[in-house]
Amino acid sequence: MNISVLGSTGSIGTQTLEVVSAHPGKLKVLGLSAGSNTGLLKQQIKKFKPKAVSVKSEEYAKKLSGKSSKIYFGDKGNIKIATLKGVDKVVIATPGLAGIAPTLAAIGAKKTICLATKEVLVAAGELVTTEARKNKVDLVPIDSEHSAIFQCLQGRSEKEIKRIILTASGGPFRGKNLKDLKKITPKQALAHPTWKMGQKISIDSATLMNKGFEVIEAMWLFGVPLSKIEVVVHPQSIIHSAVEFVDGSIIAQMGASDMRLPIQYALFYPGKRLANKFRRFSFTDSKGLTFEEPDRKTFRCLDLASKAIGEGKTAPAVLTAANDVAVEAFLAGKLPFLRIADVIESTLSSNNVKKYSSLEELLVVDGWARDKAAQFVVKFGG
Amino acid sequence: MNISVLGSTGSIGTQTLEVVSAHPGKLKVLGLSAGSNTGLLKQQIKKFKPKAVSVKSEEYAKKLSGKSSKIYFGDKGNIKIATLKGVDKVVIATPGLAGIAPTLAAIGAKKTICLATKEVLVAAGELVTTEARKNKVDLVPIDSEHSAIFQCLQGRSEKEIKRIILTASGGPFRGKNLKDLKKITPKQALAHPTWKMGQKISIDSATLMNKGFEVIEAMWLFGVPLSKIEVVVHPQSIIHSAVEFVDGSIIAQMGASDMRLPIQYALFYPGKRLANKFRRFSFTDSKGLTFEEPDRKTFRCLDLASKAIGEGKTAPAVLTAANDVAVEAFLAGKLPFLRIADVIESTLSSNNVKKYSSLEELLVVDGWARDKAAQFVVKFGG
Repeated sequence: MNISVLGSTGSIGTQTLEVVSAHPGKLKVLGLSAGSNTGLLKQQIKKFKPKAVSVKSEEYAKKLSGKSSKIYFGDKGNIKIATLKGVDKVVIATPGLAGIAPTLAAIGAKKTICLATKEVLVAAGELVTTEARKNKVDLVPIDSEHSAIFQCLQGRSEKEIKRIILTASGGPFRGKNLKDLKKITPKQALAHPTWKMGQKISIDSATLMNKGFEVIEAMWLFGVPLSKIEVVVHPQSIIHSAVEFVDGSIIAQMGASDMRLPIQYALFYPGKRLANKFRRFSFTDSKGLTFEEPDRKTFRCLDLASKAIGEGKTAPAVLTAANDVAVEAFLAGKLPFLRIADVIESTLSSNNVKKYSSLEELLVVDGWARDKAAQFVVKFGG
Repeated sequence: MNISVLGSTGSIGTQTLEVVSAHPGKLKVLGLSAGSNTGLLKQQIKKFKPKAVSVKSEEYAKKLSGKSSKIYFGDKGNIKIATLKGVDKVVIATPGLAGIAPTLAAIGAKKTICLATKEVLVAAGELVTTEARKNKVDLVPIDSEHSAIFQCLQGRSEKEIKRIILTASGGPFRGKNLKDLKKITPKQALAHPTWKMGQKISIDSATLMNKGFEVIEAMWLFGVPLSKIEVVVHPQSIIHSAVEFVDGSIIAQMGASDMRLPIQYALFYPGKRLANKFRRFSFTDSKGLTFEEPDRKTFRCLDLASKAIGEGKTAPAVLTAANDVAVEAFLAGKLPFLRIADVIESTLSSNNVKKYSSLEELLVVDGWARDKAAQFVVKFGG
């Protein structure tokens, strides 16, 4: 099977290539796309010999010249990698909204989508799932939670779902209250208890916005309403999520916290499961599994995400844009941790919720929301 | 769909009929078979209006005369009910070896088997699974553990199984040592912490022989060797069992301790899951799930079962026979609790392990083993 990997130098991208290496001869990497990390990209090119690669801009493309792969850059380059002839599956791990256009292009080219970028479904879920249905293309989630749900649902129809139990580690600040979180620094927020992940997603995990996004993703991926998704805090992160069926039977997917597992599942889906040497979970070594309700008062982002998907249309795109801006400001020391939710809430409230029918329209809303959020950062950051 | 229920007045039988009643118009009961509880059977006949019923003997059959159902009795009656024309599925819940002949007859008549009686696979697993394969008949387990494994395996081949995690509540004596168990009374042993069940199976649960039987059943049902089955004590009995696949992904089936759930699953398999009002499990109400290794030194029956299936051929039949006799003696106050394992071990050691090729041969071995075990009861009961 032939694949392209978009976002190949990020956390999911590099782990995807580890999975490729773990199964010699089974997967051929035809395309790679990255941002500005040309150093790592050069190593990947040397090892996987893709037909084509793409980077952020012409400037970075020049640093790769002389290599045997065809070199592209920018949004067009990304789309080229996503639609390469001969590619069966495209891994979408490009951060942010930049993942949407190549996803739509890959769907149009009938490639199976292995989806890691949350924004693709959070901001543009309606557009992307409509195109996927129209083109009869599978959207296979790579996120550990959605992969879990996807695995639990195999062979079952959405009508059999009573509810989805979306588990959450609770992030590094589980058990803390609003007072505790007043003076949180970026460094404290970046220390996630169970998963190895990038900076942006670590903060999203600390605010529980990450879980809010996942609720929205689950709605689009599995065709269920908000009311059928229950977020359950499970600090050990062993049950990656579960599905309760109408008969009362709960099917759960469990395992060690190793992203290579859902990546491998997606890459080989619907093929047989393959042996690997990734981390394992042992029941008898475990100190037990616990569950609790999320603290929605302290972690307001969870309900802000519900509010956005409840409003629908452009609101979830405004949610991701405002969150991006707020998290960036927090990481830059310009916004207190607890003000992230304020920036998002105010931006959502300022939005005149409208229908959209194309990615272009959505990007206009995104731009507006980012400007608006930046204003609120100044207001709340003072 | 039309069903017959063998063992209709027992715990599984009555719960099977509850499931039938919970889904009006979906299942028609054509046949019922019971032992001597004609009082309850009369009520069942009145409610479900089966075409035919069967009881233990002519004596009991006479108590049913005048009813509109055809009345049979004895082993032949059981087989009649198991092979009734028009029946699609046969629930086998007749206790003990008496379940084997009707199971084989139903398989021969191409009925789908919903299997609750442990002895059918423990004592005659090779014979029964060979016949099922030959006749292309599905064996759908009703036991909560095997139903869980069956549900977790849907759509997967046995080659993808790394191991089966067979959970055990640990029984009423979990955490106790040999000294604690010296003077256990039948009453103490009959108090199972999580499941509502019959007397014999309650004692098997207290000795962990029940789990030993389930290991053997799992081997036959799922085509896996002993080395791929791990017994894990899970006192809350919420995870009913799980499958670890070769890729490290673990699929677990969970739920409240309600036997009607696996019964319903089996009755409607492979159809859609149907809503019901049975008990539910709530993650956030749970006090957590824990796991530990079984104490094989105190609960010796677990390893005796492994020994028997390791020897194969007639040894598992000797195991069930000796266990039957020993448990009966314990319940009658004639054998101390800890001596149950001694009776079984000695009977197994006395057995000259031979091949068998028919149920008749197996029943001869069963008779021998019961006599032998009775001798050991006298020896160890003194």
